[in-house]
Amino acid sequence: MTRLSTVNTKDSPVLIPQKLINKERQDSKLQIDEINTFLESNPEKQSLTHQLIDQIVNDPILQTDTKYYDQTKDQQREITAKKIARLATYMEHDIKTVRAQFRDNDLIKQLQSSSSSSVLPLTNKDISLFDKRLSLVANIDPQLGTRVGVHLGLFGNCIKGNGTDEQIKYWLQTRGAAFIKGIYGCFSMTELGHGSNVAQLQTTATYDSKLDSFVINTPDLTATKWWIGGAAHSATHTVCYARLLVEGKDYGVKTFVVPLRDLETLQLLPGISIGDIGSKMGRDGIDNGWIQFRNVIIPREYMLSRFTKVIPSENGSDKVTVKTQPQLDQISGYSALLSGRVNMVMDSFRFGSKFATIATRYAVGRQQFAPNKNSTELQLIDYPLHQYRVLPQLTIPYLVSPAAFKLMDTYYSTLDELYKVSSSSPANANGLKVVSEKLKNLFIDSASLKATNTWLISTLIDELRQTCGGHGYSQYNAFGKGYDDWVVQCTWEGDNNILSLTSAKSILKKFVDSATKGKFNNSLDEDSFNYLNPKFIMKVFTPSGDSTSIIDDDDLYSYTKIWEVSLVKILAFIGKSIERSRDVDSVSKLLVMVSKFHAIHSMLKTYHNKLTNNDPHDKSFINDQYTQETMWNIYKLFSIYFIDKHSGEFQQFKILTPNDISKIIQPKLLELLPKLRKDCIALTDSFKLPDAMINAPIGYYDGDIYHNYFNEVVKNNPVEKDGAGIAPYHKILSDMLTRGFEFDAKLGGSSNKDILSMLNK
Amino acid sequence: MTRLSTVNTKDSPVLIPQKLINKERQDSKLQIDEINTFLESNPEKQSLTHQLIDQIVNDPILQTDTKYYDQTKDQQREITAKKIARLATYMEHDIKTVRAQFRDNDLIKQLQSSSSSSVLPLTNKDISLFDKRLSLVANIDPQLGTRVGVHLGLFGNCIKGNGTDEQIKYWLQTRGAAFIKGIYGCFSMTELGHGSNVAQLQTTATYDSKLDSFVINTPDLTATKWWIGGAAHSATHTVCYARLLVEGKDYGVKTFVVPLRDLETLQLLPGISIGDIGSKMGRDGIDNGWIQFRNVIIPREYMLSRFTKVIPSENGSDKVTVKTQPQLDQISGYSALLSGRVNMVMDSFRFGSKFATIATRYAVGRQQFAPNKNSTELQLIDYPLHQYRVLPQLTIPYLVSPAAFKLMDTYYSTLDELYKVSSSSPANANGLKVVSEKLKNLFIDSASLKATNTWLISTLIDELRQTCGGHGYSQYNAFGKGYDDWVVQCTWEGDNNILSLTSAKSILKKFVDSATKGKFNNSLDEDSFNYLNPKFIMKVFTPSGDSTSIIDDDDLYSYTKIWEVSLVKILAFIGKSIERSRDVDSVSKLLVMVSKFHAIHSMLKTYHNKLTNNDPHDKSFINDQYTQETMWNIYKLFSIYFIDKHSGEFQQFKILTPNDISKIIQPKLLELLPKLRKDCIALTDSFKLPDAMINAPIGYYDGDIYHNYFNEVVKNNPVEKDGAGIAPYHKILSDMLTRGFEFDAKLGGSSNKDILSMLNK
Repeated sequence: MTRLSTVNTKDSPVLIPQKLINKERQDSKLQIDEINTFLESNPEKQSLTHQLIDQIVNDPILQTDTKYYDQTKDQQREITAKKIARLATYMEHDIKTVRAQFRDNDLIKQLQSSSSSSVLPLTNKDISLFDKRLSLVANIDPQLGTRVGVHLGLFGNCIKGNGTDEQIKYWLQTRGAAFIKGIYGCFSMTELGHGSNVAQLQTTATYDSKLDSFVINTPDLTATKWWIGGAAHSATHTVCYARLLVEGKDYGVKTFVVPLRDLETLQLLPGISIGDIGSKMGRDGIDNGWIQFRNVIIPREYMLSRFTKVIPSENGSDKVTVKTQPQLDQISGYSALLSGRVNMVMDSFRFGSKFATIATRYAVGRQQFAPNKNSTELQLIDYPLHQYRVLPQLTIPYLVSPAAFKLMDTYYSTLDELYKVSSSSPANANGLKVVSEKLKNLFIDSASLKATNTWLISTLIDELRQTCGGHGYSQYNAFGKGYDDWVVQCTWEGDNNILSLTSAKSILKKFVDSATKGKFNNSLDEDSFNYLNPKFIMKVFTPSGDSTSIIDDDDLYSYTKIWEVSLVKILAFIGKSIERSRDVDSVSKLLVMVSKFHAIHSMLKTYHNKLTNNDPHDKSFINDQYTQETMWNIYKLFSIYFIDKHSGEFQQFKILTPNDISKIIQPKLLELLPKLRKDCIALTDSFKLPDAMINAPIGYYDGDIYHNYFNEVVKNNPVEKDGAGIAPYHKILSDMLTRGFEFDAKLGGSSNKDILSMLNK
Repeated sequence: MTRLSTVNTKDSPVLIPQKLINKERQDSKLQIDEINTFLESNPEKQSLTHQLIDQIVNDPILQTDTKYYDQTKDQQREITAKKIARLATYMEHDIKTVRAQFRDNDLIKQLQSSSSSSVLPLTNKDISLFDKRLSLVANIDPQLGTRVGVHLGLFGNCIKGNGTDEQIKYWLQTRGAAFIKGIYGCFSMTELGHGSNVAQLQTTATYDSKLDSFVINTPDLTATKWWIGGAAHSATHTVCYARLLVEGKDYGVKTFVVPLRDLETLQLLPGISIGDIGSKMGRDGIDNGWIQFRNVIIPREYMLSRFTKVIPSENGSDKVTVKTQPQLDQISGYSALLSGRVNMVMDSFRFGSKFATIATRYAVGRQQFAPNKNSTELQLIDYPLHQYRVLPQLTIPYLVSPAAFKLMDTYYSTLDELYKVSSSSPANANGLKVVSEKLKNLFIDSASLKATNTWLISTLIDELRQTCGGHGYSQYNAFGKGYDDWVVQCTWEGDNNILSLTSAKSILKKFVDSATKGKFNNSLDEDSFNYLNPKFIMKVFTPSGDSTSIIDDDDLYSYTKIWEVSLVKILAFIGKSIERSRDVDSVSKLLVMVSKFHAIHSMLKTYHNKLTNNDPHDKSFINDQYTQETMWNIYKLFSIYFIDKHSGEFQQFKILTPNDISKIIQPKLLELLPKLRKDCIALTDSFKLPDAMINAPIGYYDGDIYHNYFNEVVKNNPVEKDGAGIAPYHKILSDMLTRGFEFDAKLGGSSNKDILSMLNK
């Protein structure tokens, strides 16, 4: 069928969404370039983002269009493998770009050559360009992102976090894993019977002193490694989480590199059983598998030994020694998961911006119901309920962005510091203490931001899909697969409830230290936990008088501060409850709330500091007055929307009264919605997502919703082989419809009077 | 691979979920048969339910196992067609069963024979048995349910609601549609550009007096019929919603039977363009299509004319007359959707019970974290947070059931009354008035129950999936496809937000009539809207004093009544807001809440009345004292859980104070959870869902979670053709991993010093 264009109209009232959407563009005075700089952190990062996106969406192998939504599991897996091979070539290119070395000297060969000393070893900076590329790819094709992410992020980071300098260099650089070459890794942590409780994993690594090797075993079915991304078909090696058993003693769970497959044939090595986990709710392009080990022998040196090392007896009769640094060992055991959590916060920004763009454009272009008989139908976005359903969701990616970039920076700087401190010899005890405190704070922030934002974006996708009515349910409009792909983020690399509890318990501990002992570490905690400053806590519990001044438009920080007050009040309530009941579990529902409030607070505070240029490292880049005002309205709406959503807690813990809700919060909500409504198209244009990244015809830039959608549907569903509208299985139906009557057709037998009387004789 | 059994254990700590689950069964004193009778309404319905389920899950064509989760769209569609053909044979059998006529006389042939007067015409009662079968099938294989439901429920009910007696008999009985024979119908209401706003549909049916026929046209792209279930490949006929144009006058949207395809070849008829809508978020077994009409001519008599009729001029010069009964015409225009809404409430009960069973069994069988080093790991269900996440969800199907059965009964009795009254000649004016009031109330109740419960079950599936961790994300454990299939219920046959607004606006009108004019129709409104009785409203606004007595364990109705109080208070607040602002839209967010509260109230009230044997038509059947107490605890938990969820509104509208929430509601919640926890396995066993209906190995009855799950995964993912763990596409990966270096491999060119200097010459 010829592609339908907008010219195809007859003499009936025609819906013209593209005109409506373009009108909004013309009417808006927003500086969308400035906003985009804000959202992409700074001009350098912004320009890089757009360069990379441009390359990805125009790459003949990497590009992803609506055909994506019709692929079977097997097709998805094969196409994803092709894309991985393509990405591997970009990896080499990106490292050369960072090192600015394109002439002479084969840089990758030099890096892989174990003897080469003429070239500096690979650093995080070298792969930062590819990391950014991968993060963007992951938002266009999430299963591709994960499949590479398991290898580089989980396998790679597990080695970086737990390996010695030499082990890191060997596996990642010399063997080529860092270049997606030589080795393809997977990450064998989770077992069928154990997920969050990593310490209880059952796979064993028994040291055999005669062989000077470890023997890896899966003791029973529930210890089968489960959900292992890349195991089913791709991985040549795995990092295996297994209990270290030495001379009968159990040293707990450590990490081991275990080869799984022949490099050229991908055939399984002896003792390795692997199966395909099969169909999932989403991300079927990932070949998740299960692994069982039966007496698999690996050299002692394959244990990752930065913090725990097995030293064999020298003459065969001495005891084997196990040297360990317990504190760092434990932290870094989990550190492989950190990178994933940090990335998920960034994904929350990009996924959120994509679906907010689709739903906003649809809300502006779609018309429904006329106020009276002779007027044209209203645009969806002009209904207050629809504004309430769409616009607060649109503020979410705005608020996530600054927090996501900040968390990413903190992650890199903290890990660099850990790496430096733990490499120095002799050990820098004070340095180790400081960096382990920083790591703990990073765990709290990343856990609470990961959990909160992956939940927020699940809700965002779901609610925005519903705002698009039936068209939101079409696979071609991205919501379905988007949701199915997204929601696993609430479970993997730290279940959201467990993460929320863990981070909230740490916050509670800080609160108790501060409130009861005045303990507060200004230099480490002032940034993320400023509300736990003893002075602030005291002030919260000093009667202030005028409760209506809690939100004050002359004091923009008040929209952040109200969350600080609420955190302190909830924490105090929790503290008292535990004092009474001696039972932390009974308040776990409230602890989850604390983690959520902490994340909302972080996002508001970071956004506020950026927009006011308070933070010298994180400038706003917004100079236009009107644009700035609008950016503040986004900030306000985000805060007010969530106060209203949590008005139960805000009233229960007496931060706000019922009248405050009725007279201040909800009226403010209704006042902010129309303000943002008039710029909503410009606010989504500011994300600067090309159509190829949107990949949902009802959300394309030109706003020609109906034609774009119709054309994509027709393109992906060509006329049937047996004739238009005739299914391959049509005979099943026509046979059914034209079937005869029981007696005529003698279906199975018949109970006609004559026959029955004959049978009766 | 041999099926793994529980005997396969070695010498490691083994997880034994089946033992844990069986222990709970032994310990519970609940009478699960009595509960099941309660849940299935009464002993007759109960026995029928189990008979039908037993037949379905053991039918070689209808049965659905975990292979279901691996089918491609094309496979799903073909298998669904086979199942439809199979169901058609049950249809004939079921009608014969109801009429108790299996000997002599071919009943279906008699019914189809247009001249036959020896046999009574088909009634709702005749097909009630098949309806129940279909409703159960729809919960095992939702896409199958829909695909048949569109034909019988939408196409059939549209004809029943809008056709004359003769039209109904002809299309459904003589032509065989009611037997899924001769005709397969679809329902052409929605268009690409219009969904909820049915009155603005653009397809035209122009009366041509010369031909004495209608000409059906699709005036432009946005008027393309869209999402039409069955259109892509199955339907031979459609009921088409189109604007009736007679002599230039637009009479609004009416319904017309339009043939689409040849019965034997399924080839499209002239003027009909049909295409496949393609992939959807879920229910890919349904062949949704789009339809365009280009000068399609149908006889005048194909217009469904119970309430609107076009009468041609007798001599060609008189005016054409259009006779219409506007009020009933409008109501019955939508009545085809009513059956779907009523069924979705029943689906909410059954879907909810399925996922509650899976998650509860998993929560009891799964262990995670030990309180200290030497103790065994706790069962998930023993964590208060986990109880909070699972048990209130388990109460939802309990509370939905009585309301669903009641709504179903009201639906049938009201429609029967409408049919009788509108068939009587001369028209029974008073009867019509009463039945149209009853229909309006049915619209309110069904809209608010449909919207609220489809939302609740979406949340239930999503939250319970998360409680199963990663295993919830496996397609084989039912949550993924379950969710994807389910959520369309929030959108179709009345978008939940629109339905909520519509029902709440009607409730608001009733409230204003009652509160300001004392108007209240006791006989019609006392059942669903008892809280709108002027006396009750007055009492709510009389200061009562002791607010802590709002929930009173000596007065079980108080758990329902608190919702009545809150409804009145919110409605009063809304009334005042509108008085001030003159703008209903500004309170639309609160109106959605009113609809939700109304539904919660209906469920609580109906459950309360059933359990107290207050309703002579709806007995409890629970005699055991302990079981009854537990059933009351379910009722209490449901009420308390949603009060807490909506504590924002309960405080804002001053039904409860902050202290009530902290000191009464939340402690009661924490007190009820462990009470229900100890019987939670029995409470899910009471649904009596066979494994074949659960279709999720982590939720099977025997509780052998890990083996069942592992075995299903292995069964559905056999060893690869090229060898275990070797994908068909493995060469893509091995080529990538074994690739050379740039200079050696001369990839694309090279920048080696010698070559560059040569090129420089």
